Amino acid sequence: MKRIVTFILINLKSYAEGTGQRAHQIATMAQSVSEESGVEIGLAAGYIDLHPLSRHFEIPIYAQHVDGVPPGAFTGHVTASAVRQAGAVGSLLNHSERRLTLAALEAGLKALTEEKLSSVICTNNEATSAAAAALHPTYVAVEPPELIGSGVSVSKANPEIITRSVAAVREVNPEGKVLTGAGIQSGECVKIAVDLGTDGVLLASSVVKAKDPGAVLRDLVSLL
Amino acid sequence: MKRIVTFILINLKSYAEGTGQRAHQIATMAQSVSEESGVEIGLAAGYIDLHPLSRHFEIPIYAQHVDGVPPGAFTGHVTASAVRQAGAVGSLLNHSERRLTLAALEAGLKALTEEKLSSVICTNNEATSAAAAALHPTYVAVEPPELIGSGVSVSKANPEIITRSVAAVREVNPEGKVLTGAGIQSGECVKIAVDLGTDGVLLASSVVKAKDPGAVLRDLVSLL
Amino acid sequence: MKRIVTFILINLKSYAEGTGQRAHQIATMAQSVSEESGVEIGLAAGYIDLHPLSRHFEIPIYAQHVDGVPPGAFTGHVTASAVRQAGAVGSLLNHSERRLTLAALEAGLKALTEEKLSSVICTNNEATSAAAAALHPTYVAVEPPELIGSGVSVSKANPEIITRSVAAVREVNPEGKVLTGAGIQSGECVKIAVDLGTDGVLLASSVVKAKDPGAVLRDLVSLL
Amino acid sequence: MKRIVTFILINLKSYAEGTGQRAHQIATMAQSVSEESGVEIGLAAGYIDLHPLSRHFEIPIYAQHVDGVPPGAFTGHVTASAVRQAGAVGSLLNHSERRLTLAALEAGLKALTEEKLSSVICTNNEATSAAAAALHPTYVAVEPPELIGSGVSVSKANPEIITRSVAAVREVNPEGKVLTGAGIQSGECVKIAVDLGTDGVLLASSVVKAKDPGAVLRDLVSLL
Repeated sequence: MKRIVTFILINLKSYAEGTGQRAHQIATMAQSVSEESGVEIGLAAGYIDLHPLSRHFEIPIYAQHVDGVPPGAFTGHVTASAVRQAGAVGSLLNHSERRLTLAALEAGLKALTEEKLSSVICTNNEATSAAAAALHPTYVAVEPPELIGSGVSVSKANPEIITRSVAAVREVNPEGKVLTGAGIQSGECVKIAVDLGTDGVLLASSVVKAKDPGAVLRDLVSLL
Repeated sequence: MKRIVTFILINLKSYAEGTGQRAHQIATMAQSVSEESGVEIGLAAGYIDLHPLSRHFEIPIYAQHVDGVPPGAFTGHVTASAVRQAGAVGSLLNHSERRLTLAALEAGLKALTEEKLSSVICTNNEATSAAAAALHPTYVAVEPPELIGSGVSVSKANPEIITRSVAAVREVNPEGKVLTGAGIQSGECVKIAVDLGTDGVLLASSVVKAKDPGAVLRDLVSLL
Repeated sequence: MKRIVTFILINLKSYAEGTGQRAHQIATMAQSVSEESGVEIGLAAGYIDLHPLSRHFEIPIYAQHVDGVPPGAFTGHVTASAVRQAGAVGSLLNHSERRLTLAALEAGLKALTEEKLSSVICTNNEATSAAAAALHPTYVAVEPPELIGSGVSVSKANPEIITRSVAAVREVNPEGKVLTGAGIQSGECVKIAVDLGTDGVLLASSVVKAKDPGAVLRDLVSLL
Repeated sequence: MKRIVTFILINLKSYAEGTGQRAHQIATMAQSVSEESGVEIGLAAGYIDLHPLSRHFEIPIYAQHVDGVPPGAFTGHVTASAVRQAGAVGSLLNHSERRLTLAALEAGLKALTEEKLSSVICTNNEATSAAAAALHPTYVAVEPPELIGSGVSVSKANPEIITRSVAAVREVNPEGKVLTGAGIQSGECVKIAVDLGTDGVLLASSVVKAKDPGAVLRDLVSLL
């Protein structure tokens, strides 16, 4: 069975270049490239940008984190319900910049699932990818921490971690979808990642901080 | 010198009754009561409600938490800059449901100050109130944890903790402003708190979960 | 294949009744009951008691937590190497009173494994038990948080959570061993837990805070 | 009033070179240098080394962290009572490698004080030093994070942070004692720090990882 749809998820983080008007510009280009190429491109945006982005664009908008708590006495928390109401279709969980306890991760995933939202659990190696897969998220996104923001693509520097993580995920959950991240910056990186068995990529700075994000986005889909 | 302005800050937490349309209804009533009474009433809202509330209402809108990080590679974080752009005039910090390390608390406060935003540091007792005062926030909000959500007002159950905390804050920072919280539910509670030397109150469930929040708000300001 | 060995692990927590001389008394009784019954009984002790207990007793002594860091610049951390040098044969990880991020949990487990120490990962439900099993610890110990310290035995109150957790663990890892905890207090509880497919039990207050811990220990093994 | 006693506190961290036999070697040298020079030298050791070091040496032995909880159901925690029973005379709190929430910091300090143990609260800048001083610990130890482990002495690189932190501490608590840390490696660094108004120094790698820790210790006290 061929997995046909490749998913490119751009994490806007808290970058100034990924907030407010700049987020809208990236969304405009992402939507355009997605329509031209047929590749699914999503944005993981800051909470305050979720609603305007969801309202103005057709591409999937993700949150970057949700707390696995119900509506209630949770000051400073963000519920799955709140991000759904803001128009998000899913959320990252357990990003390397926002690690969660195993219990909180499972609670966050459950909260997303109950709101019929997608989930992307970030992991740092083969073992944690297998553990994440056992929770049955929509995607497991493997990002070797030593390569995040390094400018060195995981698909070139350490292709084995991709193949081993894909294998580890599929052993626990044969239907499990895998994204790969860390250092992804070109269509070649994406192509390698997909050829190694992943369902897409998670990337951030190489798009968000690019002089011409549209050019990078077009390059990313160019070999698919 | 008499401190003339009393500040009533309503923490909407993640309550379903304090989100979306319900937040707008409470804001409508809060603005009306504030205009009638001359008492300053603010709302601490969820991130996703910050922008619509700020846009539609004149009363001060606060965030419930900010991360003391600059714009950058901080997935799932909320910067002071982002909440300012959403129209917030300040933020809670270190609420009992979102405690911070001392270093993160100071970084959050600094980030708010650099964005010219107000800060309300929540504390749990006399000693932590003094420590918070040494950081020079706009307000220190003392909330004895054993009384939060108890339905027992701190101003009746434990007035000494208010007077001792006010004294502790003023010893470290003679200009320090103090809010008091935990169990506040009536105009009488507010009156006692103000008479004991505080500059206002921080409260949540007794307004947000009330059948008639407007009636509670009118009662809260009735003896000022 | 019958799993012959049942493991009873007593968590001494930070109880005054489980520290120093009191820990030695419990160890004395545990060793005696273990020898009489042939049931393996271990103690998870405070760091400071690890070395004296390991030195004076034959029963397995566990730590209650290790940090997944190598020896180095980690002030206030406890390495797997340090607990091994103190004579411990393993450690709890991710107890409900000391939850870990997924990444830290995996790092802790890896550190224990490299030191040839046993690992008991505590979990709170079926899904996290499966995730923990994917990491391949020596034991997964399922403790429904609502029953911890409740005096209500999980094996009576919620036997399905035991059978489902055992199934979830074995689906991910057919060789995975499972302990069950929360509310275990008698030989009958232990018997039910073992009959439901677990390899033993993890318990604390019903032994440590008992007037006669030896009597409780003898009761625990009485139906095996 | 001249402050006569200078305190040199060596943080052994989790260094392999500061554990077990190696900790004993450093303690032997520290005791010898302390006796020769009259300078007070203490060691902050791992939990497992607290008891043997306290038993075999006269110099003050500190823990590196305590949890501000009473004896009880706190798995994997270390109480002030436990470190006192192990012979420690005090503890670090809030080291940069083990940051605490403000509430936990105050609770830890209170627990130490109730056990009549000394407390060294680590801070990262002037503002957090003032906040720590408001809690009235035995010492505030200021360590600019950018200089920790840098090999660049705070007393040379940034003497103003020392003078400003000392001033900030003394404004809140005129009797407050201040240690300074980060990059301290020679008698000259110690001399500068003391001349700038501090009561001693906190240091780690330059002693613990030295080829000849005794020589470094002798140098540290040489200009006092």
